[in-house]
Amino acid sequence: MEIKKINHIAVAVEDIEQATDFWEKTLGLSLDHVEEVQSQHAKVAFFPCGDSEIELVQPTDPESSTARFLQTRGPGIHHLCLEVEDIEAALAELKAKGVRLINEVPITEPGRKMAFIHPKSSGGVLLELYQLL
Amino acid sequence: MEIKKINHIAVAVEDIEQATDFWEKTLGLSLDHVEEVQSQHAKVAFFPCGDSEIELVQPTDPESSTARFLQTRGPGIHHLCLEVEDIEAALAELKAKGVRLINEVPITEPGRKMAFIHPKSSGGVLLELYQLL
Repeated sequence: MEIKKINHIAVAVEDIEQATDFWEKTLGLSLDHVEEVQSQHAKVAFFPCGDSEIELVQPTDPESSTARFLQTRGPGIHHLCLEVEDIEAALAELKAKGVRLINEVPITEPGRKMAFIHPKSSGGVLLELYQLL
Repeated sequence: MEIKKINHIAVAVEDIEQATDFWEKTLGLSLDHVEEVQSQHAKVAFFPCGDSEIELVQPTDPESSTARFLQTRGPGIHHLCLEVEDIEAALAELKAKGVRLINEVPITEPGRKMAFIHPKSSGGVLLELYQLL
């Protein structure tokens, strides 16, 4: 399996507009766009940063995993997303190595396929894999 | 202030050798080197990943902030480090904007100057700034 790069770091936020203020006005990053990511029940703001992105994730459903994260831990870094060439091959390899996957079959969203690895298998890090389409 | 890129993502770990197994053998990243970072009371393993790095941080002092993080939250993503051109100028700008800084004066380590921003000012994200020397 070849990890190409950090695709993004996701930050869980209560209020995407308020959080955008810090990343945009205080740090000077540029907001690329805001997107509803249906499969994650979230509204996401994308800030390109070098060859990666910083994403602010506001849950749109109080039962979603990001909403539960906010309830228990408060706002902060939520997950790390690594980009691979072939996500199905990567998931098969991880499964064969005994890694616990949250998504055994990747979810397709516009422009990418994605899957989460369970933090129990990755030292407490919620890890996402991305394959760009 | 111009953010150049994500310099690294730091992951707090209890045992750097055990954690290295996952990032190296399971994910296939290459360990560049392990370094004692005196100012942070930590042993750090550096894994280049695209144009950034993933760093595993094992505290060497039970009173350090990473050790306290591990005690309260367990292992997982600890901080996000953004690279700037001029760290003194960046800190002055942030201070003028009312941002709470953990290090008002950057710490110098071999090859870089570094400073932390208080998570109270950055939406719960422990943010580090780096200037490469």
